[in-house]
Amino acid sequence: MTRRIEIVEVGPRDGLQNEKTLLSVEEKLDFVRRLEGAGVRRIEAVSFVNPKRVPQMAGAEEVMAGLPHQAGRSRIGLVLNRRGWERAVAARCDEANLVLTCSDTFGIRNQGASRAEQIAALAPIAADAGPGKPSLSVTIAVAFGCPFEGEVPDSAVAEIAEACAAGGVAEIALADTIGVGDPWKVRRLVRLVRRAAPAAKLRLHFHDTRNTGLANAAAAVDEGADILDASVGGIGGCPFAPAATGNIATEDLVYMLARGGFETGLDIAALVDTAEWIGAKLGRPHPSALSRAGVFPKAA
Amino acid sequence: MTRRIEIVEVGPRDGLQNEKTLLSVEEKLDFVRRLEGAGVRRIEAVSFVNPKRVPQMAGAEEVMAGLPHQAGRSRIGLVLNRRGWERAVAARCDEANLVLTCSDTFGIRNQGASRAEQIAALAPIAADAGPGKPSLSVTIAVAFGCPFEGEVPDSAVAEIAEACAAGGVAEIALADTIGVGDPWKVRRLVRLVRRAAPAAKLRLHFHDTRNTGLANAAAAVDEGADILDASVGGIGGCPFAPAATGNIATEDLVYMLARGGFETGLDIAALVDTAEWIGAKLGRPHPSALSRAGVFPKAA
Repeated sequence: MTRRIEIVEVGPRDGLQNEKTLLSVEEKLDFVRRLEGAGVRRIEAVSFVNPKRVPQMAGAEEVMAGLPHQAGRSRIGLVLNRRGWERAVAARCDEANLVLTCSDTFGIRNQGASRAEQIAALAPIAADAGPGKPSLSVTIAVAFGCPFEGEVPDSAVAEIAEACAAGGVAEIALADTIGVGDPWKVRRLVRLVRRAAPAAKLRLHFHDTRNTGLANAAAAVDEGADILDASVGGIGGCPFAPAATGNIATEDLVYMLARGGFETGLDIAALVDTAEWIGAKLGRPHPSALSRAGVFPKAA
Repeated sequence: MTRRIEIVEVGPRDGLQNEKTLLSVEEKLDFVRRLEGAGVRRIEAVSFVNPKRVPQMAGAEEVMAGLPHQAGRSRIGLVLNRRGWERAVAARCDEANLVLTCSDTFGIRNQGASRAEQIAALAPIAADAGPGKPSLSVTIAVAFGCPFEGEVPDSAVAEIAEACAAGGVAEIALADTIGVGDPWKVRRLVRLVRRAAPAAKLRLHFHDTRNTGLANAAAAVDEGADILDASVGGIGGCPFAPAATGNIATEDLVYMLARGGFETGLDIAALVDTAEWIGAKLGRPHPSALSRAGVFPKAA
């Protein structure tokens, strides 16, 4: 039997959020519809952050208003805290993806809260999720390294994963927010999260900053993870992570998986068309590779 | 104990051969010396092909004349046939790397010989190699797919590997000449070659045309291969393989391996400097990713 790998398309959120060319609500809806036309079933459509801090993410409620519930489709809203969660509930997202950060410095810059404060906020949100509200997944951000603090201890990742297990979070994503991961660390962290939260499904989120994105994705698949984030065209980058570049490109990932005999349900040609379309809208190619990004940690 | 991965730098050969800006013999020697200064111990320095067909590779003898034998360093000459082998012997290369192609069409275009004709040429060359002459390795080209014939049957790879075993070839490289491989095929072909030629050391050669190069490299390492080709800056491409793009970048590979806890003996900062230097000489960034390269095979 062919193994199926589920791809969560994050182009409309992680892909766009760092781009200077601001898209209208109608353009964002067009983007979502093109991606769903290419076979995407789960899509990070919006982010409930402060639009003053991330201007591209303004209009999240208007985008969600254009995406009424539809069987077999899940439109995800990214949230950073209780306030974001409440907006995701009000906007009738199918899912909310709560970001918790491994490092205090990144957490304070990204969402104004230390790791402990973020973990404390998780339980009441997890308790609030359920029938009639968005389902909840958690992304463990900067799990492979922090642009400010450098190496991230395993204990920080485990602590968040354990809090997720305690809150009954159904899906945990390990995010290499700044693209410093390697395949062997992927395997180690997947095993670590599985021990810390045995009931949770595992999702992996990679950036291609140092060209290791697909290597990390392959390692995750080999380690048994069935869900991967990707962004069409490889667009993306975090406004609060210096030198962060694009997510792994959905079409590259689908190609690699298809050649490896895995099923994704996505149509490469339609993805390539969509990548061209969004590239033309944004007017910028995506950067990658170590020569431009430099080594990590800087001291090495 | 830290596992050591040996990197064969192919920038001066595979990296340069497709570039329009022709380097002088002195510039090529400068390139080799910079790479050796970064810790490279084995380097594909020249190619004994017809300079009318690959103008960049003119002056191979003059380059080798500038690289007298040195303990602990191996300067490799690529050869396509008996004539190339004789030039490599006369030029006092430390090693000769004979390319044999899995597909007839690629072989005829690349070196004017079918697979069977190439295999027939191997035995006398292998018999001629030995003390006082270059050591011999064989690269099995287009092992992961041919730009003209599409999928390459395992039997074609096995046939060449068996001929290498019969000829006592000490090292066999599996080359994804056009960058269509995936990590799972890498594992399968490594096992296949190991069965066909159990005594040979295994080397892998990847291009990053579809962004899977480092994923393939990681899979090769996981499958037990200890030797990888790479090209500083990710420059490269075969003049007879349409849409072929750069080799995996040496500095990206070294970074990934270092993060994974492997030793290469190479200095990333010096590699990055050299990548910048050669990039300035050539005046062109290297392409990659599926959106530009298209799917493979085209029918899919």
